[in-house]
Amino acid sequence: MNEKRAAADFLLSHDNYEILTHTNPDGDTLGSGFALCLALQRLGKRARVITDSLPRDFVFLTKDVEEQRFDAETIVSVDVADEKLLGGNRAAYSGRIALCIDHHRTNKVAAPLKCVDAEAASNCEILYDILTLMGVPMDKSIASCLYTGVSTDTGCFKYGNTTSRTHRIAAELLDCGVDAAAINKVMFDTKSKLKLRMEREIYDTMEFYADDRCAIIAITQEMMRRLGVGEDELEGFASLPRQIEGVRIGLTLREKEENVFKISVRSDKETNAAAFCERFGGGGHIEAAGCQLRGTLEEVKARLKAAVDEVL
Amino acid sequence: MNEKRAAADFLLSHDNYEILTHTNPDGDTLGSGFALCLALQRLGKRARVITDSLPRDFVFLTKDVEEQRFDAETIVSVDVADEKLLGGNRAAYSGRIALCIDHHRTNKVAAPLKCVDAEAASNCEILYDILTLMGVPMDKSIASCLYTGVSTDTGCFKYGNTTSRTHRIAAELLDCGVDAAAINKVMFDTKSKLKLRMEREIYDTMEFYADDRCAIIAITQEMMRRLGVGEDELEGFASLPRQIEGVRIGLTLREKEENVFKISVRSDKETNAAAFCERFGGGGHIEAAGCQLRGTLEEVKARLKAAVDEVL
Repeated sequence: MNEKRAAADFLLSHDNYEILTHTNPDGDTLGSGFALCLALQRLGKRARVITDSLPRDFVFLTKDVEEQRFDAETIVSVDVADEKLLGGNRAAYSGRIALCIDHHRTNKVAAPLKCVDAEAASNCEILYDILTLMGVPMDKSIASCLYTGVSTDTGCFKYGNTTSRTHRIAAELLDCGVDAAAINKVMFDTKSKLKLRMEREIYDTMEFYADDRCAIIAITQEMMRRLGVGEDELEGFASLPRQIEGVRIGLTLREKEENVFKISVRSDKETNAAAFCERFGGGGHIEAAGCQLRGTLEEVKARLKAAVDEVL
Repeated sequence: MNEKRAAADFLLSHDNYEILTHTNPDGDTLGSGFALCLALQRLGKRARVITDSLPRDFVFLTKDVEEQRFDAETIVSVDVADEKLLGGNRAAYSGRIALCIDHHRTNKVAAPLKCVDAEAASNCEILYDILTLMGVPMDKSIASCLYTGVSTDTGCFKYGNTTSRTHRIAAELLDCGVDAAAINKVMFDTKSKLKLRMEREIYDTMEFYADDRCAIIAITQEMMRRLGVGEDELEGFASLPRQIEGVRIGLTLREKEENVFKISVRSDKETNAAAFCERFGGGGHIEAAGCQLRGTLEEVKARLKAAVDEVL
């Protein structure tokens, strides 16, 4: 709590804030950023959020944010684990971050004041605590920002990072009038026609191996050209193979450039995706890891299958 | 709370329980049933759960339940809105229910003691309160049963029925050591190969109408025969069309017998699925409703499309 108290005191005693979010922004970095921005504005301070893009689904977070003209004095980063993740904003802000608020255990940002809580499932949970310590009245707008981060970073309270604290914070936020069902519909129950088409194509590539304990899908450059999709529209597919009943290790092959494949691996704890990927110079978590392989699709599959034979 | 207090007192002062669940049992009725059974057994009483089937995914709920031999004296129903929903057990138990615990506003069960709380998102939330009033120590087994009901009836805290109370109860249950991620993986992130094949087939039938504001999918008898699936494996598909971005009304046509179609309608609030279905003698909720139509697939679609033109 001391780090949070220090962050709250810092935020109360400065002004003219720029709040940095990470590149390819998600619900947690944007929810954190706009919640903090709204809170600071409520206190009569000036603040804006810096983001390299604002996906349409998240525009609602900005609804009550006032556009203010001022010269920035105080730079705060939210949910940014590394300065590299500032993307195009890195050059302008490198070395200038005064306060870093994050929940990644691996946080590498250099800042005079850091508030990093790796126990928090989402960065918005940390923001919830800091805003509470600051005495900011939690209204529906701020609570909706925080809820968005909490919900998206936990897969709507589905993943193992969800704690009882996550649920208790969600309860407080709902009591502020958040329309959680509407937010969750956009975040979890909406897919574009393009995404639907991709899913169909990708399902058609699914093959089973090792008595159906392994499932493999492949997304090739040819497929992406044909469907007219870019890299950033391929999020979320890595979880598909492992969702099939009985599958202990799911492999998603994405052709980044001709004959270069990025492999996403999802597995149960015993199969150990991280150890699997380390064989190929990659790594990650026990249940989710990645690596990269060169070769034709068939060559890459053959190497992966041989490794699957060894781990299963 | 008075109804819950009365239910708690009743449960403390009787013995030899049979706990009735509804037909085609789901996580909430089974979670309620086994949580109550475990609690009563912990108190030194005898109890068993009566269910017309136990889907494999729910077998884990019974792990710590003791099989006891006794003559039943006290009949309790959980999550049963109507005696009809006892299915094959109706004849044996009709008129014998001593205590009815349910969360359906439309509850029609005749019982001397009823505890019906329609504000509860899940029946397991009511059970949580009753077991607490009974002074039952909440252990991991009981908490896992209750969590399963809470999570499944709210779509993992995604739907509009989720309240701050739902989250607070989930928090208490996690604190008892529930492995929520493992339960949610089975409930929400696992699909059979057959279900995958069906999804692909069903996606192929999807057509868009009214400037893509309406999406229609159709499941025919021919398709079910070809894939070898029964009625009960068609759960969950009704939400697919409305998930597509921009779709305001999603229609799922299921051919129950030749030229008889059951129509499931999902819509936004303005489009009003219930009013849409009432045109065809059906009904339901504003965002989810159903009706039945006779005719060939093309005839049925034409009638539905004409109605869509009128409501959009």
